[in-house]
Amino acid sequence: MGADNQQERLNSYWISGFTDGEGCFHISINKNSKMSLGWQVLPEFRIVQHEKDESVLNKIKNYFGFGNVKVNRKDFHGTRKEFRVRGMENLEKIIEFFEKYPLETSKKKDFEIFKEVLLKMKNGEHLNNKGLDKIAYLIQEMNRKRNLNYLKSSETKR
Amino acid sequence: MGADNQQERLNSYWISGFTDGEGCFHISINKNSKMSLGWQVLPEFRIVQHEKDESVLNKIKNYFGFGNVKVNRKDFHGTRKEFRVRGMENLEKIIEFFEKYPLETSKKKDFEIFKEVLLKMKNGEHLNNKGLDKIAYLIQEMNRKRNLNYLKSSETKR
Repeated sequence: MGADNQQERLNSYWISGFTDGEGCFHISINKNSKMSLGWQVLPEFRIVQHEKDESVLNKIKNYFGFGNVKVNRKDFHGTRKEFRVRGMENLEKIIEFFEKYPLETSKKKDFEIFKEVLLKMKNGEHLNNKGLDKIAYLIQEMNRKRNLNYLKSSETKR
Repeated sequence: MGADNQQERLNSYWISGFTDGEGCFHISINKNSKMSLGWQVLPEFRIVQHEKDESVLNKIKNYFGFGNVKVNRKDFHGTRKEFRVRGMENLEKIIEFFEKYPLETSKKKDFEIFKEVLLKMKNGEHLNNKGLDKIAYLIQEMNRKRNLNYLKSSETKR
């Protein structure tokens, strides 16, 4: 986790506090015919900001040394940008970070589920039906209990 | 700034990061016949959260050793709570805090204006028309340029 300019480097606890306000641990299960079960589990960590604060997203990217800053969406409030991290290797570093600099709000529960799902994925549990079901039910506990297409899909009714 | 339980105490930079996400430096100018000019300048610092995270607002209050946690509003999303600080003495401590643990987003600009207005108030500038006008124009620069009743009011057209 290097920074080009030590003076510009964000404080670790600042990032933890900012994430408690603005961060999101998100996991989707998407249809993907290339996967053996036909579904892909896609975990990601995101921090979304109005484009006027893109510079702080770049500072966060600079702190971690990975991830991307890109357009989140455009709407009538203007353009929103996001710092986004995908991929097991980098997400494991994100998990290490928040274990060292813990979240303080109820977002910590989402983080704990996120961590649990990533551990299951590391053990390959998303590659069998029973494991994927478990992961889907865990995801439903996160982010205000969304309805997953995976769980609604007739393909999963066995 | 004492805490009852050292282990429970929030990290200062965490508070700074959380404020960049969730905090608000707010100044209103309200009609008040008790004031010599008929208007009262009311600066306050707020952090609003869903009631499920009231505990973190109490931790913030505990960190500072002043301020109040109370209902912000009720709506169809449930009840929202706020940590709120009013009063020159405590707001000066809030300013000292954010000078030591700086904000990183564009909210820093709001903070700088907030600081400028409080300095003017300390110098009594809000007690004369010219000073109050200056303060009103500064407030318009904050929080997405709200229209102030004070500036719209016919009473202020001199």
